[in-house]
Amino acid sequence: MKRLLKGADVLAWENGGFRCLKNGYLGIDGDRIDYIGTAPPALAYDETRDMTHTLLLPGLVNGHTHTGMSLLRGLGSDLPLKEWLFDTVFPVEDRLTDEDLKIGMELAMLEMLSSGTTAFTDMYMGAGYTAQAVLDAGMKANLCRPLQSFDPEEDPMTCRRMQEMLSLYDQWNGAGNGRIQVDFSIHAEYTCTKKMVRAAAEEARRRGAGMHIHLSETEAEQQACVEKYGMTPARWFDSLGAFSGRAYAAHGVWLTTEDRALLKERGVTVVHCPESNLKLGSGVADVPALIREGVAVALGTDGPASNNNLNLIEEMHLVSLLHKGVRRDPTLLSPGQVLQMATVNGARLQGRTDTGVLTVGNKADIVALDTDRPHLVPAIDPISNLVYSAQGADVVMTMVDGRVLYENGEYLTMDRDRILFEARQAARRLLS
Amino acid sequence: MKRLLKGADVLAWENGGFRCLKNGYLGIDGDRIDYIGTAPPALAYDETRDMTHTLLLPGLVNGHTHTGMSLLRGLGSDLPLKEWLFDTVFPVEDRLTDEDLKIGMELAMLEMLSSGTTAFTDMYMGAGYTAQAVLDAGMKANLCRPLQSFDPEEDPMTCRRMQEMLSLYDQWNGAGNGRIQVDFSIHAEYTCTKKMVRAAAEEARRRGAGMHIHLSETEAEQQACVEKYGMTPARWFDSLGAFSGRAYAAHGVWLTTEDRALLKERGVTVVHCPESNLKLGSGVADVPALIREGVAVALGTDGPASNNNLNLIEEMHLVSLLHKGVRRDPTLLSPGQVLQMATVNGARLQGRTDTGVLTVGNKADIVALDTDRPHLVPAIDPISNLVYSAQGADVVMTMVDGRVLYENGEYLTMDRDRILFEARQAARRLLS
Repeated sequence: MKRLLKGADVLAWENGGFRCLKNGYLGIDGDRIDYIGTAPPALAYDETRDMTHTLLLPGLVNGHTHTGMSLLRGLGSDLPLKEWLFDTVFPVEDRLTDEDLKIGMELAMLEMLSSGTTAFTDMYMGAGYTAQAVLDAGMKANLCRPLQSFDPEEDPMTCRRMQEMLSLYDQWNGAGNGRIQVDFSIHAEYTCTKKMVRAAAEEARRRGAGMHIHLSETEAEQQACVEKYGMTPARWFDSLGAFSGRAYAAHGVWLTTEDRALLKERGVTVVHCPESNLKLGSGVADVPALIREGVAVALGTDGPASNNNLNLIEEMHLVSLLHKGVRRDPTLLSPGQVLQMATVNGARLQGRTDTGVLTVGNKADIVALDTDRPHLVPAIDPISNLVYSAQGADVVMTMVDGRVLYENGEYLTMDRDRILFEARQAARRLLS
Repeated sequence: MKRLLKGADVLAWENGGFRCLKNGYLGIDGDRIDYIGTAPPALAYDETRDMTHTLLLPGLVNGHTHTGMSLLRGLGSDLPLKEWLFDTVFPVEDRLTDEDLKIGMELAMLEMLSSGTTAFTDMYMGAGYTAQAVLDAGMKANLCRPLQSFDPEEDPMTCRRMQEMLSLYDQWNGAGNGRIQVDFSIHAEYTCTKKMVRAAAEEARRRGAGMHIHLSETEAEQQACVEKYGMTPARWFDSLGAFSGRAYAAHGVWLTTEDRALLKERGVTVVHCPESNLKLGSGVADVPALIREGVAVALGTDGPASNNNLNLIEEMHLVSLLHKGVRRDPTLLSPGQVLQMATVNGARLQGRTDTGVLTVGNKADIVALDTDRPHLVPAIDPISNLVYSAQGADVVMTMVDGRVLYENGEYLTMDRDRILFEARQAARRLLS
């Protein structure tokens, strides 16, 4: 089945940057892009769709989230961090059943698809149940079972969490024609023993899997680590081998200059989560310095309980404004740089080399944005318009591997009404 | 004509704060609210509308914008402030015709209505032409003709701008049953002589009109004023009588402690414009201090060329996050405080005492938000959900003075297609 999208502005990838082809053509053969251009293709297509007044962009990649927390959306807002986490979130999380985690994941996917996200990197419990939901919905995800260990006597390889992690990997890695990938994960320095980090790093390295961690989110975390180990969390993780393969670190708000140099050297991607860092009062990561110094930066929403949504278009808008204002320099972070964070840099951290940008040969992970809306007129520059003016709700089509999963408010692979009903029920039970 | 809205959650105003009435009733008699409650009203209504799965909130008030700049959306993004303003924006503004200003205003109103704004405070040229557009569209606006004067010899009362200001006032103040109000305006300290400020303040005072100014937006402005006059812009304006009546000041990024005390004493409202202040690299106003010290704070988008949209729901989300993060305190600015900024505090700066909150006797300026959307489920707290999770596009109905102006993507008083067409044409001509 070969399909041709015509009449849209196409945000193609050329020579390492985005270029907008006005009134262009994008051809899809099965699950891959086989044509991009401003002239009609020479070959025939089975089906042609008029996409006039839309902008086609690569599917957005959410580099760090905790989808199951969708059921906790808004829980404990405006509380101090410790009260929020320990007194409010943790007690409810303890009561989450596997079924809850599946519904939370489904709810999260409804939201992500309708705001242009095609792939996400999740760190949460119950990944076996949620993996099936991802498979059924047709999205792409890098999943993990985050490891924690507080007991230096605990055997990392026989503990329950590691067993879950390994069986998740064995059962799901590569499923759905590679849509699902399984990475390893250490929750954070302050929740893990050295022994566990070493073991996880070794297992990940052996499988060529990624390593997903929380890093330098708060000043307290950074300081406590230096006091305890005489080194920053980044250096501590590195000393235990956690950065020897593909690795990505959420937050990075308190990274030092030396940390940044280390992350660059190891090729670790920092996942910037600006909304969450602001809402929890953690601070503002020095993204301009990271980019200037050559560290790869992707974009994440973090969990919806500290955001409180999963809207990467909103996140792009925020990141494009925030650093200009805080560092008082309006030339920082161009719209193209921000779009790279939300697309190709996210795909790279997931270890996916055949998506993240629109180019011939890549998987057809494509989002269409309706540009015939008052807040997007005039369109002096399409990337600027996308990053500074668009809303998540401007997305009118989300396609993964050539398959349309969302279009004009309708979900083609998920039962929206059933999920909203069950999510409301689950939340009522959890929070009563 | 008496209409009853039933089944919605109603964000009513009780004892100086918002309270959500679940599954409530809101009655409208002509242009006013005549009933709010959780029980059905005793009196009969001509028409009853089921508003289940919506949240009714007061119409949002945009406290500071330059609507005509809609045609310049995205112009000169990411340039240093001076290049943006002097080399990019000003030359295009010089070419704006009265017809352009009207189209820009109409485009802005399309956007504002679809994201829940019922009233706005505009500072731009051509206010006579745009006043007619506001009248026709059915919105509420406080308009002005901003005064500037660089020549100390110029007679403030006979100059062209003052003449336009006075005739704007005479022709339009109170039009549309009070929907249009005309205020006076001094563009800024750095664009005006003392003589002009004194004259404008005197004319405003005599008419009981408001005074709309730009204040302490950039550090350079603040410093230059202190060097030139030996006092801050706030003190300078005050010394010339500009704060003797109802007055409101956009930005306030660089206000000193003494400035804040002065503004509080004079009852001046500060209009916080967080997106614009970030995008132009101006900095972050100390809103928590303003509120703590008793200064009224409203919310504005500023012009769409430095934002780049007119979406107050997005602005509420940003303001609720920004100060928590920058001051590293997640307890700062509750959702209720943020919603007050965007509603009742805006109405007060406009001198409107019969709107800004939903209460019996007030004008029916009402917005309905569709809460049956994945990113708004579950709804643990409706105000938190509105401020942290909602998008502008969740607005499904916008009503001003009891008249529905926007509903489910349709505009009832404006020709959307004609306006988008003309706006694109005008922008093409202006930017070619």
